[in-house]
Amino acid sequence: MRFLRLRWLPVLFVPGILLISSHALAADLTLDEVVRGLDTLWVLIAAFLVFFMQAGFGMVEAGFIRAKNTVNILMKNFIDYGVASIMFFIMGYAFMFGNGSGFIGTEGFGLSNAPNPSGVSLYAFFLFQAAFCGAAATIVAGAMSERMKFRSYLMYTVFISAVVYPIVGHWVWSGAGWLSSMGFADFAGSTVVHATGGFAALAGVLFLGPRIGKFGPDGSPRAVPGHSLPLAALGVFILWFGWFGFNPGSALAVSNGEKIALIATNTNLAAAAGAISAMITVWIKYGKPDLSMTMNGALAGLVAITAPCAFVMPGEAIVIGLIAGIIVVYGVLFLDYVRIDDPVGAIPVHGFNGVWGTLAVGLFGHRSLGLAHEGLFHGGGLTQLGIQALGVAACTLFVFVSMSAVFYFIHSTFGLRVSRDEELRGLDIDEHGMEAYSGFQVFTTQ
Amino acid sequence: MRFLRLRWLPVLFVPGILLISSHALAADLTLDEVVRGLDTLWVLIAAFLVFFMQAGFGMVEAGFIRAKNTVNILMKNFIDYGVASIMFFIMGYAFMFGNGSGFIGTEGFGLSNAPNPSGVSLYAFFLFQAAFCGAAATIVAGAMSERMKFRSYLMYTVFISAVVYPIVGHWVWSGAGWLSSMGFADFAGSTVVHATGGFAALAGVLFLGPRIGKFGPDGSPRAVPGHSLPLAALGVFILWFGWFGFNPGSALAVSNGEKIALIATNTNLAAAAGAISAMITVWIKYGKPDLSMTMNGALAGLVAITAPCAFVMPGEAIVIGLIAGIIVVYGVLFLDYVRIDDPVGAIPVHGFNGVWGTLAVGLFGHRSLGLAHEGLFHGGGLTQLGIQALGVAACTLFVFVSMSAVFYFIHSTFGLRVSRDEELRGLDIDEHGMEAYSGFQVFTTQ
Amino acid sequence: MRFLRLRWLPVLFVPGILLISSHALAADLTLDEVVRGLDTLWVLIAAFLVFFMQAGFGMVEAGFIRAKNTVNILMKNFIDYGVASIMFFIMGYAFMFGNGSGFIGTEGFGLSNAPNPSGVSLYAFFLFQAAFCGAAATIVAGAMSERMKFRSYLMYTVFISAVVYPIVGHWVWSGAGWLSSMGFADFAGSTVVHATGGFAALAGVLFLGPRIGKFGPDGSPRAVPGHSLPLAALGVFILWFGWFGFNPGSALAVSNGEKIALIATNTNLAAAAGAISAMITVWIKYGKPDLSMTMNGALAGLVAITAPCAFVMPGEAIVIGLIAGIIVVYGVLFLDYVRIDDPVGAIPVHGFNGVWGTLAVGLFGHRSLGLAHEGLFHGGGLTQLGIQALGVAACTLFVFVSMSAVFYFIHSTFGLRVSRDEELRGLDIDEHGMEAYSGFQVFTTQ
Repeated sequence: MRFLRLRWLPVLFVPGILLISSHALAADLTLDEVVRGLDTLWVLIAAFLVFFMQAGFGMVEAGFIRAKNTVNILMKNFIDYGVASIMFFIMGYAFMFGNGSGFIGTEGFGLSNAPNPSGVSLYAFFLFQAAFCGAAATIVAGAMSERMKFRSYLMYTVFISAVVYPIVGHWVWSGAGWLSSMGFADFAGSTVVHATGGFAALAGVLFLGPRIGKFGPDGSPRAVPGHSLPLAALGVFILWFGWFGFNPGSALAVSNGEKIALIATNTNLAAAAGAISAMITVWIKYGKPDLSMTMNGALAGLVAITAPCAFVMPGEAIVIGLIAGIIVVYGVLFLDYVRIDDPVGAIPVHGFNGVWGTLAVGLFGHRSLGLAHEGLFHGGGLTQLGIQALGVAACTLFVFVSMSAVFYFIHSTFGLRVSRDEELRGLDIDEHGMEAYSGFQVFTTQ
Repeated sequence: MRFLRLRWLPVLFVPGILLISSHALAADLTLDEVVRGLDTLWVLIAAFLVFFMQAGFGMVEAGFIRAKNTVNILMKNFIDYGVASIMFFIMGYAFMFGNGSGFIGTEGFGLSNAPNPSGVSLYAFFLFQAAFCGAAATIVAGAMSERMKFRSYLMYTVFISAVVYPIVGHWVWSGAGWLSSMGFADFAGSTVVHATGGFAALAGVLFLGPRIGKFGPDGSPRAVPGHSLPLAALGVFILWFGWFGFNPGSALAVSNGEKIALIATNTNLAAAAGAISAMITVWIKYGKPDLSMTMNGALAGLVAITAPCAFVMPGEAIVIGLIAGIIVVYGVLFLDYVRIDDPVGAIPVHGFNGVWGTLAVGLFGHRSLGLAHEGLFHGGGLTQLGIQALGVAACTLFVFVSMSAVFYFIHSTFGLRVSRDEELRGLDIDEHGMEAYSGFQVFTTQ
Repeated sequence: MRFLRLRWLPVLFVPGILLISSHALAADLTLDEVVRGLDTLWVLIAAFLVFFMQAGFGMVEAGFIRAKNTVNILMKNFIDYGVASIMFFIMGYAFMFGNGSGFIGTEGFGLSNAPNPSGVSLYAFFLFQAAFCGAAATIVAGAMSERMKFRSYLMYTVFISAVVYPIVGHWVWSGAGWLSSMGFADFAGSTVVHATGGFAALAGVLFLGPRIGKFGPDGSPRAVPGHSLPLAALGVFILWFGWFGFNPGSALAVSNGEKIALIATNTNLAAAAGAISAMITVWIKYGKPDLSMTMNGALAGLVAITAPCAFVMPGEAIVIGLIAGIIVVYGVLFLDYVRIDDPVGAIPVHGFNGVWGTLAVGLFGHRSLGLAHEGLFHGGGLTQLGIQALGVAACTLFVFVSMSAVFYFIHSTFGLRVSRDEELRGLDIDEHGMEAYSGFQVFTTQ
């Protein structure tokens, strides 16, 4: 191979030289091998971007809560990704992609003899999927923040990443699941990742109850402002950036570059539209454009476009995003109305908009873009929409029930909630023995 | 295609499997198709990096201003990107790349039947260009910060992203513009993006006037230190990182890997040189190495290398960066001298160094690297330099005049500036009803 | 080439169009050219990620120290990368990769006629290596923080990036070094980058002495908590993200996609395991899960997997990471015990775990994955382990001795340490004339 021009063969350990030279000595690359290398590279880069979303979640969650609980949320954020990485390796991947029944996979533990439904390297596919699993797990941290024990959070994260998330994933993405065989379409996880995280969070906060002082004696909600909107803003930008791996990466192959480009463009337009419509909605309702809500609007648009990103055109992506931005504002108001306390808005963003995005496939999707049935607005009737509704209902119900059992178990054994004193003082001191902002005066009273 | 090894055909919605399998059923990939996929992938990754620069701009602008206006600048930063994404989709792309005259394009609205001058997917090319448009728009936010109404900023951003930026872009990058047909060379946008942003900012601050207290009764400037240099530092690192998409991505094709690698190396060296020379300049002048100026020096180097990055060699990139670092220091002093208040240094960084970088093409550029005429320092005489001077003069004049009209219009209708009371109290409370750092004691007096 | 479909040939300066069209006029691409373009692209993306680690280092170091020294550490962080970029261009690359003896290279200054041992563009390979050099340089900043003069830091950084790091690199990665010819294996730099940085830091802090107040009159260590754990957490996430360029990028070629995917997966699992084991170790020892230590555990896992990432399987990567997390906790305690003051834990993370990772190659490495000898735990005996021990001992000894000479020289001429008054007041005011957090009340007393 002329292009190698290695001067010092045999070399030993210039990084990578070994790989090149050993290959060069074997045989020239075929086009198929190059394509597989290219696809693997793309899936890996997408996996790196999805990993980086973990930083985005961490910054959003930290920025939206009070300074006194910041170490605790960052700790949860680190450890849920760590636990998800290890547990998904040991058993999650097997439950999700292993051969088995339509309900759960039963082989491939520790990636040994693990099936690989993708056209890329098993390890690349695993890393991409493990990062998704970490995202589903960490969504819950924000909703349950400022009052949940760290030890109990650790237990929760084992269950969701080892069992609950993989089962939902098996239904939809394994190729053998009962939902995918019905034609259920969730391209990159509005249901599998976001609604799963959002409805697990809903189960959790129902067991946990609201923070002290969130609702007045008459039940009226009080604002508990986040301690650092710049951190939260950075987090939203990082999430938006990472979503360019999350959605386009799910195409798994670059051979269809047109499709990946369409997905990326749809993702960006839906996020932009969500930010704008949430800003306008809250501006009309309260007279001022609110940054927190605008940022949640962008995230809502991203969650909503996740399922349909491959099946719709850019103009439709904008409409989906606009509606997502409205849903998130009214979703936050609804939770306040029913006295459910979700400090960062994780349930409206990931739960409600996960449902909306999944349904949007059945409304706006095109058969010509690979969907089983034409969407309702293109004359396809209710078939695809019905499948979508059934699928998202089944998944969220399963998640809500199974996670309720998990949280009930933790509640009955270790307890979910810190003491009243600890909550008032902040979790950072009692749970971790440290402050987030040493040297600064922070007012820990509400 | 052997490499696919799909076990469970037919599968429906494992993400991407559908794409692979549908392709596999059609025909094997040709080398041309692989190249196009590879090029599309590269342009998309570059687009993601350029998008991420928005986070960099946000953090730099927030860090360099006072805490009491932080929510406002972050809000502007989110929304200008959102508006740019949507407006560039609806009409900006058509004005910029559509067929039409040498002055403006007139077809391709909503990307429908939009011409695609690149060798990659239309959507990939669009996303990359839309992210550039967002960058041009957001440059202005920093210069006009701490005193401009949010509502008026929103109006401004519609004009620049829908009309003004696309027109300049059409002149230089559409392939049909009057400037490109003269041989004007601006590889990645020292003029098109940065000088456009910088001179729009200049027009804006002239209408807006300086912040209360910036200049004493005798006209002497007062330092108004930024509230978080760590945020600003992070922002500069993110911008530097994103510039690796901005400049090398503009090559649009990886087939010429040597060129892309040269561009990336030049970009990095100019940034490094700009940081060092700004540090030394300010150290000599004031006795201490100043972090703000060092960071602006890095950005100045990046802006200056943006036009010539493909046409010069690494040693020349270092020289261009060294000069950029000196220009930014004296540029800041000059603005202080003429009592123009630019809180973050956006005009010296993007405006003055945008001009410098554009001229540097005519000084240091090589014909062998694809330039129309040899640069002055390589014996090519004044031809290319003259074209560069004409081009950057035409563009900055057009931007300054048209944006002055826009700002005059907004000034006469909604007003550009917040009230004196609001400015003193900070824009976050009055414009958005929230604080950036709840729980911290922040001194809002100057 | 059908795929170009250029409508407006000849075009001049649509970014990149020139490149494509000039190519199209010449000849079609061969598969070899495509592979070289693809490999170059991958190395460049990896270089961008490694560059971004600089932001990670900056945030970790800033977050772990006190607010009063934050400007100083950020300044060091910017400038060491700037100096490393320029010095590695002028001479470092020549010393590292130039032809010469087994000890040092002697040609290729300013990249002119520079040898290129890789299969990718020289500039891409240079940029990747320059970013590595910057990483080695910046590791020292954290360990010597809060008391070292900026001017002296500037001198140090010239020496390490121009001479010391390139010599170690030459021994191991040039293809002509005496260590690589013995079969020493350090895939991505546990020794070359991390132990080099860690042991240079050790030499530095021995000359510098501990911060005022770090050790009580009886020698007992006092905690000096960092001023912003969210910044530090963000930094760790950025480093982890960047490591996906650092380790997999070192493979330099995507043709062996399986290998790159394995490396990325190993990198992630070791980091996750390091975080978890450090958390558990400190939890057992002190009763609370500590965020700082958990984050250092993740970094420890990343450092430790850097040498063996290509030579071990995922299960082994987990074990290597678990041990790394324990080493970092006891390493911190050990430094406290011997009264060495390393404010951010750089020596345990990069020094001790650099050694551990290098030795782990000899314990866990597989011949089938390209290692010269089978590792001890796979029945290969002590051969590879012996080579690894010799190599890491030689490198760390060389670094420690040569950097001691450098620090002794600086100490004797300009002085290493700021005055007592300046240290108590904070370096930001005296060295740079500015504060990191203007408008916030920061308590600068310990």
